[in-house]
Formats: sequence, C-alpha cells, structure tokens
Amino acid sequence: MSFERLKKQLHFLIEADKLKNIYRRTYLICDTERLENDAEHSWHLTLIAIILLEYATKRKDINQFHVLKMLIIHDMVEIDAGDTYCYDQVALQDKGEREIKAANRLFSILPEDQQEHFLCLWKEFEEQETIEAKYAAAIDRIQPLLLIYFTQGRTWIDHGIDLEQELKRNELLKEITPALWDYAKEIIHDAAQKGYLKS
Amino acid sequence: MSFERLKKQLHFLIEADKLKNIYRRTYLICDTERLENDAEHSWHLTLIAIILLEYATKRKDINQFHVLKMLIIHDMVEIDAGDTYCYDQVALQDKGEREIKAANRLFSILPEDQQEHFLCLWKEFEEQETIEAKYAAAIDRIQPLLLIYFTQGRTWIDHGIDLEQELKRNELLKEITPALWDYAKEIIHDAAQKGYLKS
Repeated sequence: MSFERLKKQLHFLIEADKLKNIYRRTYLICDTERLENDAEHSWHLTLIAIILLEYATKRKDINQFHVLKMLIIHDMVEIDAGDTYCYDQVALQDKGEREIKAANRLFSILPEDQQEHFLCLWKEFEEQETIEAKYAAAIDRIQPLLLIYFTQGRTWIDHGIDLEQELKRNELLKEITPALWDYAKEIIHDAAQKGYLKS
Repeated sequence: MSFERLKKQLHFLIEADKLKNIYRRTYLICDTERLENDAEHSWHLTLIAIILLEYATKRKDINQFHVLKMLIIHDMVEIDAGDTYCYDQVALQDKGEREIKAANRLFSILPEDQQEHFLCLWKEFEEQETIEAKYAAAIDRIQPLLLIYFTQGRTWIDHGIDLEQELKRNELLKEITPALWDYAKEIIHDAAQKGYLKS
C-alpha cells in the first residue's frame, strides 16, 4: 500500500501539533501562573458552543457540526502567524496578511479537496457573514472573558485595558446571544468595580 | 435577569478548564520535553476525526457531529479520576469505578437535560457499541501512536513497552479503519526496529 494521500493528511496532523505551543494572553483558571495555548482554547470553545447554543437567537437554524469544525480550525493559522493580541494596534495592522499566508501554507499540506474545505471554513469564520461564523465568534469572545474575569483580571491589568474597550469588544454578543451579552455586561462592570479594568 | 440556568452551565465550563491541567504520558511532537494535556489531546482528536473519516469502513453511516461531541467530552472524567495509563494494570482495576463517580459528579453540575445528554454520550463512548463510539476510539488510538512514534518512542521506552503490546492495543483499527491499521502496523514494526519498542 502506498499511503500517499494518508501521508499528506498525517503530515498536516503532525503540523497541527504545533498549535499546542502557541500561547495566548489569558491565564488558566486552574493554574493562574500558566498562559493558555491555542489547542486547549479551541477545545474549550467547542465545549462551550455545545452547552450555550440555547442562548443564540438563531439557534434553530445553526448547523452545530459546522460551528464545531470552524472552531476546531479557526486558530490554526497562528501556527505561522502567532497569536495577535486583540488590543495590539500595531500587530493588528498586518494580521490579515500574515494569517492568509499562513492559511495558504498550512492547508495546502492537505490533499486538494480537504485543502479547499478547510480554507473555506477558515474564510467563513473570518468573514463573519453566516450565522455559524457569528455564533462561533460569540463563543470566542465569551471564553476569554470568563477566563480573565475568573483569574482576577490579570490579563486586563497586565495590559491596562479599560471598561469601555472590553464592552466594545464583547458587543457582538448583543445581536447573537443577547442573554450572554447581559451576563457579559454584568461581569465587565463588576470587573471595573473590582479594579480589574480601568474605569 | 436571574441567570440561574446559565450559572450552572458556566460553573461546569469553568470546572472543565481543569482538563488543561491533566497530563498524559505522551510528549508533544513540537516540544518533546512537555507532556500533552487532556484538553489539547481532545482538540487534536477532533481534528483527526474530521480529516481521516474517509478511512472508516462505515463512513457513510457515521454521524460526524456525534463523533465530535463524544471526543470533546470523552476524557473529562479524568478531571477527578486522573489519567490512567493504558498499560498500568493496577490502576486499570478500579478505573471504571473512579470514572463513573467522576462522570456523575461532573455532569451533575449541568442543568438536568444537559447532564443526561452528556452522561449518555460518555457512556456511549465507554460501551463501544455504536459506530460513532468505535470510530472515536480508533482516533483515540491513532493519535498517541503518532505522537509517540514521532517523538522517538520516548513514552514506550520510559515504560518498557513491547511490540506485541502495542500491536494488541491498536488492533481495533483493523475492523474500523483497515487502512489506518495497515499504517499503524508499519510504524509499530518500524518502531521495534529502531529500538523504540522491545521486540
């Protein structure tokens, strides 16, 4: 047996292992000295997406399998492009360019049909037009919010983030998951009161 | 707004964070000094399950969304029960008991309907009767096999594992994903040749 197609797929899956070494700005609740990596972050998002679906306004139209696939691969470009901090204005300037290049390199390791499928999924998440992409993005907001709030706001304090920035960042929850937006506002205001966020 | 139901769900999702701190026996390919944790392992499995589906004999009947959900939660019991090494005969004796206790505690944090759904999913994986559970288990075999083989067999060497043990452990691939079984046999025999596995 030649395994030619399989070997391309395994090459990609071994490359994917690198996502476990891409560290984010958020600390773990279970170990407040350690930053979270993209692989465990992606796992956490999939679990949250399953559990909180009922709060999505368009929950009956959302294809959950599609949401999960998007969440599983949405951060893989960071293997090449690195994690760009959402408040880093300089790094944000060429984020798009770096990430497209990364997506092209990474997904092209796969056989052509799968390459196309994964590129489409990743672009769909980035373009934020479908209900699945929007719901996935909402989950990608709520997870770090929870992690930072329950680690005494360390990431916000480290980077001097204020109340208004954090409200603005999470505002997309309003349309997609209104009850989660209400909860987010509650903990963001509480965080400011506690001094985790500048007022 | 009371958030009562949401607070149960968030409590569970925060508890889930602990999976990032449960370490397995396998080393990362991208950092051969660090053991893999259960959260990043679970993420890797979901990606592998999507990419290698074509090798499943019953691929047309497999509900992929169901497979992903099972993989996302299959190791969560290890938050309480710890990771039981597959070749640790002593720890294996009470593994079932420890894990059932863990599943009952963990999933009971959720609202009742979700508790039931997650308990069913976890039991389905454990019981290995449905095609989804079998395919998920096959993916849960192939992933550590790849990680160990591509980290020069360190885990096998650490624990003195031999060729026959590893062939037996992966034999379930034969029925579920025959081409992956052929590949697994090839790398297991090669591992023995290289001295990663005792002959």
